[in-house]
Amino acid sequence: MTGMKAAGQKKLMLFSGRTHPELAKEVAEQLGIDVAPTRFQDFANGEIFVRYLESVRGCDAFVLQCHSSPINESVMEQLIMVDALKRASAKRITVVTPFLAYARQDKKHRGREPISARLMTDLFGTAGANRLMAVDLHTDQIQGFFDGPVDHLFALPLLADYVRSRVAGEQFTVVSPDAGRVRTADRWADRLGAPLAIIHKRRDPDVANEVKVHEVVGDVEGRTCILVDDMIDTGGTIVKAADALFDQGASDVIAAATHGVLSGPAAERLQNSRISEVVITNSLPIPAERDFDKLTQLSIAPLVARAISEVFSDGSVTSLFEQ
Amino acid sequence: MTGMKAAGQKKLMLFSGRTHPELAKEVAEQLGIDVAPTRFQDFANGEIFVRYLESVRGCDAFVLQCHSSPINESVMEQLIMVDALKRASAKRITVVTPFLAYARQDKKHRGREPISARLMTDLFGTAGANRLMAVDLHTDQIQGFFDGPVDHLFALPLLADYVRSRVAGEQFTVVSPDAGRVRTADRWADRLGAPLAIIHKRRDPDVANEVKVHEVVGDVEGRTCILVDDMIDTGGTIVKAADALFDQGASDVIAAATHGVLSGPAAERLQNSRISEVVITNSLPIPAERDFDKLTQLSIAPLVARAISEVFSDGSVTSLFEQ
Amino acid sequence: MTGMKAAGQKKLMLFSGRTHPELAKEVAEQLGIDVAPTRFQDFANGEIFVRYLESVRGCDAFVLQCHSSPINESVMEQLIMVDALKRASAKRITVVTPFLAYARQDKKHRGREPISARLMTDLFGTAGANRLMAVDLHTDQIQGFFDGPVDHLFALPLLADYVRSRVAGEQFTVVSPDAGRVRTADRWADRLGAPLAIIHKRRDPDVANEVKVHEVVGDVEGRTCILVDDMIDTGGTIVKAADALFDQGASDVIAAATHGVLSGPAAERLQNSRISEVVITNSLPIPAERDFDKLTQLSIAPLVARAISEVFSDGSVTSLFEQ
Amino acid sequence: MTGMKAAGQKKLMLFSGRTHPELAKEVAEQLGIDVAPTRFQDFANGEIFVRYLESVRGCDAFVLQCHSSPINESVMEQLIMVDALKRASAKRITVVTPFLAYARQDKKHRGREPISARLMTDLFGTAGANRLMAVDLHTDQIQGFFDGPVDHLFALPLLADYVRSRVAGEQFTVVSPDAGRVRTADRWADRLGAPLAIIHKRRDPDVANEVKVHEVVGDVEGRTCILVDDMIDTGGTIVKAADALFDQGASDVIAAATHGVLSGPAAERLQNSRISEVVITNSLPIPAERDFDKLTQLSIAPLVARAISEVFSDGSVTSLFEQ
Amino acid sequence: MTGMKAAGQKKLMLFSGRTHPELAKEVAEQLGIDVAPTRFQDFANGEIFVRYLESVRGCDAFVLQCHSSPINESVMEQLIMVDALKRASAKRITVVTPFLAYARQDKKHRGREPISARLMTDLFGTAGANRLMAVDLHTDQIQGFFDGPVDHLFALPLLADYVRSRVAGEQFTVVSPDAGRVRTADRWADRLGAPLAIIHKRRDPDVANEVKVHEVVGDVEGRTCILVDDMIDTGGTIVKAADALFDQGASDVIAAATHGVLSGPAAERLQNSRISEVVITNSLPIPAERDFDKLTQLSIAPLVARAISEVFSDGSVTSLFEQ
Amino acid sequence: MTGMKAAGQKKLMLFSGRTHPELAKEVAEQLGIDVAPTRFQDFANGEIFVRYLESVRGCDAFVLQCHSSPINESVMEQLIMVDALKRASAKRITVVTPFLAYARQDKKHRGREPISARLMTDLFGTAGANRLMAVDLHTDQIQGFFDGPVDHLFALPLLADYVRSRVAGEQFTVVSPDAGRVRTADRWADRLGAPLAIIHKRRDPDVANEVKVHEVVGDVEGRTCILVDDMIDTGGTIVKAADALFDQGASDVIAAATHGVLSGPAAERLQNSRISEVVITNSLPIPAERDFDKLTQLSIAPLVARAISEVFSDGSVTSLFEQ
Repeated sequence: MTGMKAAGQKKLMLFSGRTHPELAKEVAEQLGIDVAPTRFQDFANGEIFVRYLESVRGCDAFVLQCHSSPINESVMEQLIMVDALKRASAKRITVVTPFLAYARQDKKHRGREPISARLMTDLFGTAGANRLMAVDLHTDQIQGFFDGPVDHLFALPLLADYVRSRVAGEQFTVVSPDAGRVRTADRWADRLGAPLAIIHKRRDPDVANEVKVHEVVGDVEGRTCILVDDMIDTGGTIVKAADALFDQGASDVIAAATHGVLSGPAAERLQNSRISEVVITNSLPIPAERDFDKLTQLSIAPLVARAISEVFSDGSVTSLFEQ
Repeated sequence: MTGMKAAGQKKLMLFSGRTHPELAKEVAEQLGIDVAPTRFQDFANGEIFVRYLESVRGCDAFVLQCHSSPINESVMEQLIMVDALKRASAKRITVVTPFLAYARQDKKHRGREPISARLMTDLFGTAGANRLMAVDLHTDQIQGFFDGPVDHLFALPLLADYVRSRVAGEQFTVVSPDAGRVRTADRWADRLGAPLAIIHKRRDPDVANEVKVHEVVGDVEGRTCILVDDMIDTGGTIVKAADALFDQGASDVIAAATHGVLSGPAAERLQNSRISEVVITNSLPIPAERDFDKLTQLSIAPLVARAISEVFSDGSVTSLFEQ
Repeated sequence: MTGMKAAGQKKLMLFSGRTHPELAKEVAEQLGIDVAPTRFQDFANGEIFVRYLESVRGCDAFVLQCHSSPINESVMEQLIMVDALKRASAKRITVVTPFLAYARQDKKHRGREPISARLMTDLFGTAGANRLMAVDLHTDQIQGFFDGPVDHLFALPLLADYVRSRVAGEQFTVVSPDAGRVRTADRWADRLGAPLAIIHKRRDPDVANEVKVHEVVGDVEGRTCILVDDMIDTGGTIVKAADALFDQGASDVIAAATHGVLSGPAAERLQNSRISEVVITNSLPIPAERDFDKLTQLSIAPLVARAISEVFSDGSVTSLFEQ
Repeated sequence: MTGMKAAGQKKLMLFSGRTHPELAKEVAEQLGIDVAPTRFQDFANGEIFVRYLESVRGCDAFVLQCHSSPINESVMEQLIMVDALKRASAKRITVVTPFLAYARQDKKHRGREPISARLMTDLFGTAGANRLMAVDLHTDQIQGFFDGPVDHLFALPLLADYVRSRVAGEQFTVVSPDAGRVRTADRWADRLGAPLAIIHKRRDPDVANEVKVHEVVGDVEGRTCILVDDMIDTGGTIVKAADALFDQGASDVIAAATHGVLSGPAAERLQNSRISEVVITNSLPIPAERDFDKLTQLSIAPLVARAISEVFSDGSVTSLFEQ
Repeated sequence: MTGMKAAGQKKLMLFSGRTHPELAKEVAEQLGIDVAPTRFQDFANGEIFVRYLESVRGCDAFVLQCHSSPINESVMEQLIMVDALKRASAKRITVVTPFLAYARQDKKHRGREPISARLMTDLFGTAGANRLMAVDLHTDQIQGFFDGPVDHLFALPLLADYVRSRVAGEQFTVVSPDAGRVRTADRWADRLGAPLAIIHKRRDPDVANEVKVHEVVGDVEGRTCILVDDMIDTGGTIVKAADALFDQGASDVIAAATHGVLSGPAAERLQNSRISEVVITNSLPIPAERDFDKLTQLSIAPLVARAISEVFSDGSVTSLFEQ
Repeated sequence: MTGMKAAGQKKLMLFSGRTHPELAKEVAEQLGIDVAPTRFQDFANGEIFVRYLESVRGCDAFVLQCHSSPINESVMEQLIMVDALKRASAKRITVVTPFLAYARQDKKHRGREPISARLMTDLFGTAGANRLMAVDLHTDQIQGFFDGPVDHLFALPLLADYVRSRVAGEQFTVVSPDAGRVRTADRWADRLGAPLAIIHKRRDPDVANEVKVHEVVGDVEGRTCILVDDMIDTGGTIVKAADALFDQGASDVIAAATHGVLSGPAAERLQNSRISEVVITNSLPIPAERDFDKLTQLSIAPLVARAISEVFSDGSVTSLFEQ
């Protein structure tokens, strides 16, 4: 006999970096599997070492890592994981980054700047990633940075359904905290059937040097304002926007965002603000010291698990978001 | 003697496709050179043939083509020009597309769509382009689609200075015609020191099926409204936005955009609207049948020529936009 | 359980651009499937938009497009289709171009020319094509332009069998219309067991400037001549060749070619010539205005369908042409 | 029906170049298959032609070639075999080179040298290889030269088990013939639980110009010395090392290496030396004229066959070397 | 000061493999330089080692190698030379192969064959070549195999001028030895203003199994026939063609070709044939044992040197062939 | 005039990441220039932002970064710097990493491991690096990981000259601390004309489970031992090796290495050991808390500066190490 035949078979394996094991575990449970056993080691000088404890040959690998603090280390760890999978003959490698590092650096604002978001997708491609999966990329165009399929998941249904039940019976307005987020706010307004307002930051003509006035464009008086964004980092923008809204007579402000980066003073700042609730997902881990009373965290694990399942079974990720 | 030495020398050459020879000629004049003599031929079945009539060996080539109607042919012609330059040993090839075809398809709105803007930049890279130069890309992120340097030029100073002089002494507001263009409007507002308004299209809750209400967010009553966009295609969005502004009491409406695509009914529609003036650049050719009385066209040739000159001389393109 | 296993499965899907839907439908029927439902849209400025209406995830995609008028648009449409398939996670993409645009520009005749045929194959590779399938490429070397598998199909059996029955009982000679097509004529002569003649165009030494004499090399007197070529474009070469053959005493002339480009004056010119029949395939659509009485069109759909089926089932395309 | 489904199936095929058909046959027998029938032809000027006599479409191809004399021809033959497989639509191509040509040129010792080992892996990648399989690469780092999975097999268990039984009951020491091979010797020492010695070549301070003294570092007196290396080429290093060991009182010397290159005077030199046995594998063919009485050749065919089987069945190659 | 400026300078260096040092020396002399000093070494197992003895940093490198016997070794040597230049920071590398190995394998004649000519150009690209220069490629399409500039030189003027003077005053006809070379013969006929004839090989209908009849198409009686080809390998085709011509009454036969491969029995066969003179160039070395009385060898060194000079000085190679 | 000519000019610019500004400054001073002014910013979530404050268009960029703690951040910073240079039209980018992160992970020790050193070189290539410069790579083969020129600098002359003067008049032996470093020790022994000894770690046959005995192979009694390595990380290996040497009667031990990683307990451990002096270079910054009395740091700035100067001026880096 010239050749030897065998039936084709495929095998899904889920791998997780070390930044957010809880999310990986939750996703694995939704899929009815375990996270693949992996040995991590940090060398004395900070170099990361990874070794898989089971054969990964021929598998359909999904490598989950949340790009959280220390963010560059979390990216490098995932790159190294991908390299090891490639060299160990994984058949297909999908990088799953619920929050993609450097997504905000998606263009050159001025000359001689990097486009780090493109750099990220290139680095993952070089390491061996065949596909990317992400949740609410900072801008949709980042899909086009990767030279291959990108499964772009949306937390909007999850967040909006929660917020809708929360403000049931109230008069409410969706508010974009600045000009760059209007498209996000637009989608919220569309889904909730609500009017839209915008915070427009502009230079104060009466004060020199970059001082900005937060101008509310649209009508918010006496209404519950839902401030929406893709991420909340230090909370500064959101808190100033909320102040501007209360100044214009808003009755209540709720903040909602997919990614709770919550850097530095964010937790204290938001807790101490007049915002009544901050709603985010667990696309990033929230360590105890960044948690606070007003914070509500919704799990994206079911969404990620369903998307992985559709990808593995050649189903449709698009269908998850069609009504 | 083992080797032979010679002094290094570089030579700028400007090439032009056939869609907008006037612009190429104007740029060449600004540079004090001639457009490189090129033979174009269309085969009977529509295939394009190109041959350069002078040696291009070792030159620093700038290949100007405006992606205008028939747009796919204009793209293909430029790709073929680049291929011929690459094979003829041009040293460096910069594709100059004042208006980049397919820039609006810069993301997947839904599943199973192309990202044609990325495809365009990839095609040019494959043909042999080392660099891109463009004016007011539909979104800044398109810079990140190309794997190499992109010189992104802005027509804002040109357009805004003209408009400023035009509305001198009036009360004016910068208006974004929809949620996706707020960032552009924001830059105008910043430069002109003017307030901002937004046209927010949303489903009419009282009418079924996709009917949209054009809601004006912001105060426009009694003011001259400057409707700004990166391009005006059929004019539909702009004219409806203008109607909404007049409905809200605007005293006058001027439309300004970098790219005058002016497809189909645009000329008639704009001429017959209540908009008092439409200001664009010559980034695209305006054939006589698309010209109309209210149209003002400003030349980007000086800008493009200065940028090419900076690129050739290792100067700074960034500096052209610093004040 | 660490991973999740599933049986491998593969799915063939056939996609069609808009230039020749009849051929696609015929191929699909031969395969016993439907062409995948696809939404095409032309924007006002001519940009093409494509969206697949069913999931294509994991499929073995065959994308059929005939590169016919407007030819650059037909190429671009197919490139965009491939891009959308790549980004939608098709597993493998085979570009099917019965007639490949720009195949005649397969070399530099002189300096500073493009090699557009190579450019075409590169563009398809960049867009995401893994494989190419074509019928009777202008030269066989074009197979080597693509960095991957090329399924090169031959219409010779189809055409020659038809012609053989047509000239049964007659004395016939296979004729190459010029020096560049002798290899094609050679294959015909070999298959039909017929002698060969060649039309040799050379400068008339008695007349200045590029005037060519059509010299018949070989014996054609009193014989039926079968003029063969890979394509008939404007018909000029074929008609002049036929005239030369009749001048040398040919009793009848039949023209046969795979690709009926039939540009410009071709239909009228051929109909009015002394050629008795023109035999082509439907590798390109023949709109009514280009059809004419003497034209016979044979369908390549069964051939293309069988080749697709062999590719999908890991069979043998080579075997289709072995006797 | 839009598409057509079929069960996935995979097919292993083994191909062999012409340098060592016995090894290929032995591997095939272990796998229970035949080597795929292939036609080789040498053109008069030495160009190699290859054609596969059965369809290889969709197969999981393993292309075995031993890089032996004439070595550049053996490399080129394998490159051409890979190219033909790629163009014939093999699904996956694994290059199997028990001995990889140019592995010793794995770094620049001085400026202006090639790194030919990297060049080799690049050439195979360019030709179309997806994976590499090799036995005892000259240095482990060569794994990192290839941009894809490398299955690195070790002959140590095979060789060491044989040698252990051979020296049972004796006092023995593992010896590295020079500073560059200490790591290999270290592995042997570890596996056999034996002490280590090293031959250190250094300039003789008493004699001018590059004369080297072979200094034995470690205790060998009265012991059986097992001289280990990855390959034995001309045998010069090994014979000089053995002389140095006997000079230091070694009671016996056995030489063991994976690859029996045995160039030029090797056979005669080794046979005439005081070394009692030379143990190698059949990673390279040993023609009759290079064979000699003291030579023992162990077969790596079972190892290679098991590795191929694990790769094909998505098993684990690593597990073959775990105890 | 932030940076440090220096005047640009470029340096041409010529490198030569070991197959045809006389040609390299002649080219160098034409250029007024020396071939760059290079150390070659063959390892005992046939591996080739190369080291440049002078700095090549920043140079414009031309690497000349004639692909002659042993042909695979000559290719590998050139690949290694290119790798070493790349790693030693040569600025630009032009591979000069007067005769390109494997150029005849430029397409798949049947399924499951390689396209080795494309493989060659890919291998050179991978090794680091930026450009190729070749003389009379077997088919022009090979230019399109390389993804970069190819300087394609023609020996036709050299050969034809010699032959013209040789046959002055005679009646002569240009003859293609088979259907695949008609285009070459056509160029000769055009240049010499001579009629054309073709040798058409076809199956003898009276004899079974692949026996071919050499049929002369065109009139040769009483004329001097100039048999032209791109290369003469074993001489079999040429000698049989000459016999057929004499059978048809040719008064004399001269054979002319660019590349004198002259494998195996060629020298004896040609010397003993009725051909009166065989004209070739020195694109390949002719060792004494392949030389013969009827052989005339013309030097391409001046042509290659002029082309290199034009490339180095950003002149025009095209102009060398314009009249 | 068709084109515009200008004299070629080149400009060296030196850029520095933030890990070791002193070294960059020292290198710049040696070159007589300033480090290019660069703005660095850390976002709240740890993302790094870089902007160059002067035009870098057309420059020959050298980007110096020492990969020290936090090591992944230092790598990412350099990648981002390279990306920004590429997009800002730097002409050529040389990554200068005196110590390359992850160099120790240069092979797979077992299955399913990454080869992170190759990953590093690939990442830099992807970001836009054209060239690499490094000092004493962990293994020479890493040169072959990068697909382009690598300038590999050696600190051996610097270190050895210092040590030679330090041990003048003593009897000394060069010692490799384990089997993997013998080649390094060999070079030292060669340069200093000294004998060699090796520390051989092997399993203690009398004690179970991985306990290793440090066996000294070679004669060290009464001699000054120079323990050499490419780097000293935690100091554990070196200190245990020194203990073994003193146990065998060594009179003194000096440790010398290029890279002072000095992680964790290194400073305390080395200071408290019986080693009399630890000699390293400043290829990595030594913060005050890692400094200690016995530590001697030699500057590689002159070496790096000379190498950069040679690269910029198309001189010879090789010549820096020739005697």
